[in-house]
Amino acid sequence: MNMKDRQSKLLEGIIVPLVTPLSGNGGVDIEGLNNLIEHVIRGGVHGIFILGTTGEAQSLSMKQREEMIKETSLILRDRLPLLVGISDTSISDSAALSQKAHEAGAYAVVATPPYYFATEQSELIEYFENLVSLLPLPLFLYNMPVHTKVAFDPKTIKRIAQNDKVIGFKDSSSNGAYLQAVMYAMRDNPEFMIFVGPEEMTAEMVLMGANGGVNGGANLFPELYVQLYNAAKSHDIEKVRHLQQKVMRVSTGIYSKGKYGSSYLIGLKCALSVAGICSDFPAMPFVHFDKERRNEIEKAMKEIENVLGNKHVINS
Amino acid sequence: MNMKDRQSKLLEGIIVPLVTPLSGNGGVDIEGLNNLIEHVIRGGVHGIFILGTTGEAQSLSMKQREEMIKETSLILRDRLPLLVGISDTSISDSAALSQKAHEAGAYAVVATPPYYFATEQSELIEYFENLVSLLPLPLFLYNMPVHTKVAFDPKTIKRIAQNDKVIGFKDSSSNGAYLQAVMYAMRDNPEFMIFVGPEEMTAEMVLMGANGGVNGGANLFPELYVQLYNAAKSHDIEKVRHLQQKVMRVSTGIYSKGKYGSSYLIGLKCALSVAGICSDFPAMPFVHFDKERRNEIEKAMKEIENVLGNKHVINS
Amino acid sequence: MNMKDRQSKLLEGIIVPLVTPLSGNGGVDIEGLNNLIEHVIRGGVHGIFILGTTGEAQSLSMKQREEMIKETSLILRDRLPLLVGISDTSISDSAALSQKAHEAGAYAVVATPPYYFATEQSELIEYFENLVSLLPLPLFLYNMPVHTKVAFDPKTIKRIAQNDKVIGFKDSSSNGAYLQAVMYAMRDNPEFMIFVGPEEMTAEMVLMGANGGVNGGANLFPELYVQLYNAAKSHDIEKVRHLQQKVMRVSTGIYSKGKYGSSYLIGLKCALSVAGICSDFPAMPFVHFDKERRNEIEKAMKEIENVLGNKHVINS
Amino acid sequence: MNMKDRQSKLLEGIIVPLVTPLSGNGGVDIEGLNNLIEHVIRGGVHGIFILGTTGEAQSLSMKQREEMIKETSLILRDRLPLLVGISDTSISDSAALSQKAHEAGAYAVVATPPYYFATEQSELIEYFENLVSLLPLPLFLYNMPVHTKVAFDPKTIKRIAQNDKVIGFKDSSSNGAYLQAVMYAMRDNPEFMIFVGPEEMTAEMVLMGANGGVNGGANLFPELYVQLYNAAKSHDIEKVRHLQQKVMRVSTGIYSKGKYGSSYLIGLKCALSVAGICSDFPAMPFVHFDKERRNEIEKAMKEIENVLGNKHVINS
Repeated sequence: MNMKDRQSKLLEGIIVPLVTPLSGNGGVDIEGLNNLIEHVIRGGVHGIFILGTTGEAQSLSMKQREEMIKETSLILRDRLPLLVGISDTSISDSAALSQKAHEAGAYAVVATPPYYFATEQSELIEYFENLVSLLPLPLFLYNMPVHTKVAFDPKTIKRIAQNDKVIGFKDSSSNGAYLQAVMYAMRDNPEFMIFVGPEEMTAEMVLMGANGGVNGGANLFPELYVQLYNAAKSHDIEKVRHLQQKVMRVSTGIYSKGKYGSSYLIGLKCALSVAGICSDFPAMPFVHFDKERRNEIEKAMKEIENVLGNKHVINS
Repeated sequence: MNMKDRQSKLLEGIIVPLVTPLSGNGGVDIEGLNNLIEHVIRGGVHGIFILGTTGEAQSLSMKQREEMIKETSLILRDRLPLLVGISDTSISDSAALSQKAHEAGAYAVVATPPYYFATEQSELIEYFENLVSLLPLPLFLYNMPVHTKVAFDPKTIKRIAQNDKVIGFKDSSSNGAYLQAVMYAMRDNPEFMIFVGPEEMTAEMVLMGANGGVNGGANLFPELYVQLYNAAKSHDIEKVRHLQQKVMRVSTGIYSKGKYGSSYLIGLKCALSVAGICSDFPAMPFVHFDKERRNEIEKAMKEIENVLGNKHVINS
Repeated sequence: MNMKDRQSKLLEGIIVPLVTPLSGNGGVDIEGLNNLIEHVIRGGVHGIFILGTTGEAQSLSMKQREEMIKETSLILRDRLPLLVGISDTSISDSAALSQKAHEAGAYAVVATPPYYFATEQSELIEYFENLVSLLPLPLFLYNMPVHTKVAFDPKTIKRIAQNDKVIGFKDSSSNGAYLQAVMYAMRDNPEFMIFVGPEEMTAEMVLMGANGGVNGGANLFPELYVQLYNAAKSHDIEKVRHLQQKVMRVSTGIYSKGKYGSSYLIGLKCALSVAGICSDFPAMPFVHFDKERRNEIEKAMKEIENVLGNKHVINS
Repeated sequence: MNMKDRQSKLLEGIIVPLVTPLSGNGGVDIEGLNNLIEHVIRGGVHGIFILGTTGEAQSLSMKQREEMIKETSLILRDRLPLLVGISDTSISDSAALSQKAHEAGAYAVVATPPYYFATEQSELIEYFENLVSLLPLPLFLYNMPVHTKVAFDPKTIKRIAQNDKVIGFKDSSSNGAYLQAVMYAMRDNPEFMIFVGPEEMTAEMVLMGANGGVNGGANLFPELYVQLYNAAKSHDIEKVRHLQQKVMRVSTGIYSKGKYGSSYLIGLKCALSVAGICSDFPAMPFVHFDKERRNEIEKAMKEIENVLGNKHVINS
């Protein structure tokens, strides 16, 4: 696809922020990656996003990230649009990753603000104007203030998006009022795509006009998130509320078994391992759950399977 | 009403978090208060909440707060349910205010966590168990982490709400994922009322099951917020999206003319003054807008009036 | 003393931020207060500061605060300069407390920024200009950003202190670079008094020119803090380092036995109770230590007593 | 030097956190780097630390960082101990940089916690135990919570430092009470080196026993910081206070001319350019000062030169 084609085909629906399956020695777990990609394709998702926060991109070396781009592309074989995270504190390294993404046939790249120094809005504008000029692919802005310490001001997004290589926005702030302000600021640009990170609030934002969700849980239960998206897209409020309960069951059962902020990520990887899809090794600085926590995840998985009404994952 | 009656009649819809009209010397502007209450009743709101954040309760002396309770009650004459904020750092002073609210015939009281010392969840539980035992009225928990530095954990809410004097929750966190987690935690208690502070995200939360909004803009344009609530309540998504644009126009036009965090409050009071409803004096530590900013508010008000399609406020 | 006399006699040394001894029913524990005041006077401290953070002022009702002012004054009988905290979110209530402090013969009052709404520097200036005009006594500015969410900019302090009723600054930020910037900003006003809150860094700041410390530990071991101040004041670095170790022993042994941010306060009150000086009841939202933690404090107290080389407190 | 030799020769004094001089096209400005290194050696500093926060390491690509290590080593020719920052979010990339540092003959490496995901203390311990096992050089822990979102707990430092490859701690928290707690926690390990980042509080911490400062201003006025260190080391309080005024003059004159958090860095680079030492290009996301701000820096530099009593820099 050339850039024009890419832009003419808008994305919507559920984009999976793919976890990065790792082998014990730190390399990509290729078999696990293959299982995972086939699993989410079967689940009906609308796209794949690698090397995001859920993909632990920052914890991977440049070399590991390049490996992940290449292996994903080989397995995916253009069956779904591929988004590639290039967030880094070095603009040169971000640009280098975008080149790899381009070579791998990606649909677009995705970038947060640099995350060591906190940046002001004027610096964000300058930074992204520079970054965009270095990119061979269209860009999604990625708002993740809990990790980057800054949020894109709605006016900043509007300004950066004057460049039509900037095609969308992924918001992981969880801030509903903020996201409404972003959608309002971009109201005259209907092709600008808005995706919601937290799965707990994707349905409501799709009801209000967002294009879809980039939901971690879709690694595990892709059908559930696709169903929820479809219900919201077709304004079926009763079905939305019904499915939302299931999503909340996943969120409260899988993501909060650890004591620390990383429990979302480690819980998700543990559940994927329990489901037989891939290994549960997170990248440093995190460590996988011990036996006791794994047992809790196993128990939660079984309950969720029952709630979902069929065997979505285990032994599938 | 006795407590049982109060609880049997659930609140829903738009509760106005009333600004506190002040005269130049710091007393309550009685004429302004009268205008404001009549204005919002005409606008069809479903309840009134005084002495919240928008009501600048913390900036008022205990005596001023007592005066506000009494004067509001006299003007309101039970035409709408009255909620009274009793948030304070002293549990005794909160209890004393609840007594005044009770004497004034209030429906319930509303309390944030104490806001000087940050409190842990276990301390919140102990604090509210004590507070509730001192109250002659039912209680809404009020989540306002930007000011109190702590948020109620969903499990904490569930625990405190085991006491059936705790009848609802008002969330001003703007955090959509969090509010979903609260609603999920309280799913077995359908009488527990959930209200949303930020008007920018009230519609979507009502679509998802919340009971209504406590929206500052309803001081100014009460009909608009009532219409939006009704559209969401009846699942009319197209109408919701149409009205949401107007709400966003208010939000971006009136609340952000100042440089500082207080611009929401001062902008709202300025607009009420432009509309001829009440004075624009905020309580210390804030000061009212200068001529230049007031002109901006006047201009925004005219544009919004045009968008709203009829003269809602000015010279009404 | 008239205001001129007060100002002509500069304070320096150790000011005890007095805990507020409470009886089980929430009133002031008069006997405990008497014990405590006599204890710190015997220990040689240079002043007493009531109704600060350590005094839990915010958790006390206006009536309790007035009682504390009156009772302290009756016990103190002008033997030491008395500073009174008037921090509140309501400027009227702060002014009312300053009147009580004046009637009680206080040396000065002490005020943080209002702590519900966060304030900008321009708002701080306006607020304190208004507050000072309402005060019958000189004022110390009190920087406590962890609780008030804002810090005084050095330029703001300089500006507010253009009014000579503003006679000093108490900094509890723990930020050494910041406090140097404040001292540098005030370098042309040598009568402006600078006091340091955290006892862990008082000695170094006195070496660099600060006037003294407002150290919570001086409730318990007043002599130790006076000795440390004297060593720093006389530039005896070896003695400073030696005593600093003891102060750190107190800090690590007494203030950190609880899990939460309140452990400083509760640990201090528990230790005072162990020492037989006053009760260990904190005001809501906090609760006193259970038996297990009290045992830890007892053990730490014994070790510290040994380190201090004589029985300072227990059974004294 | 082998590791034992390195450890047997403790560092103390002023370590310059070297800025990274950049040419307009993003490469290292070799001539500027040469000027800068010769300038600080002439100024008498005791060591050089490259690729820290002041060195903008995170904004540089891996390749640029490797270039900076190599070029610095070639210019330095072992005349001073060289510390190399290896902070990264990827433990592999940190380890790779440590290898380059080793090949370049560095004295030690320096690492912050990973700074995308915030880490808990237990994760910090695990992370650093892993990192240390990968390093061919001794390690300084680098505390920089404003950028990394987490601070090392004193107990965490003590635990990590049980491995004797962990030889010191650089604290840029500005938190005096915290740094005292760290020094107290490490009191039984006198060879563990403590360095202070903020130049505004280095003198006081050296008086209290710290080993020296890692002060950005030493890029510009190395002699001044060496004099201040020497005065503190020899307990000459009067001289310390006198020189402290000059350090504060630099801090307030050079570091605060911009509007944003980056003004320290950009101001310092601008001043180095005004002094004819190296270019003023910061790495993305920052941009150099415009003409107006540069004029302010020029003016401040002249005033400081006068205060310092001789021409330290310009045309030197």
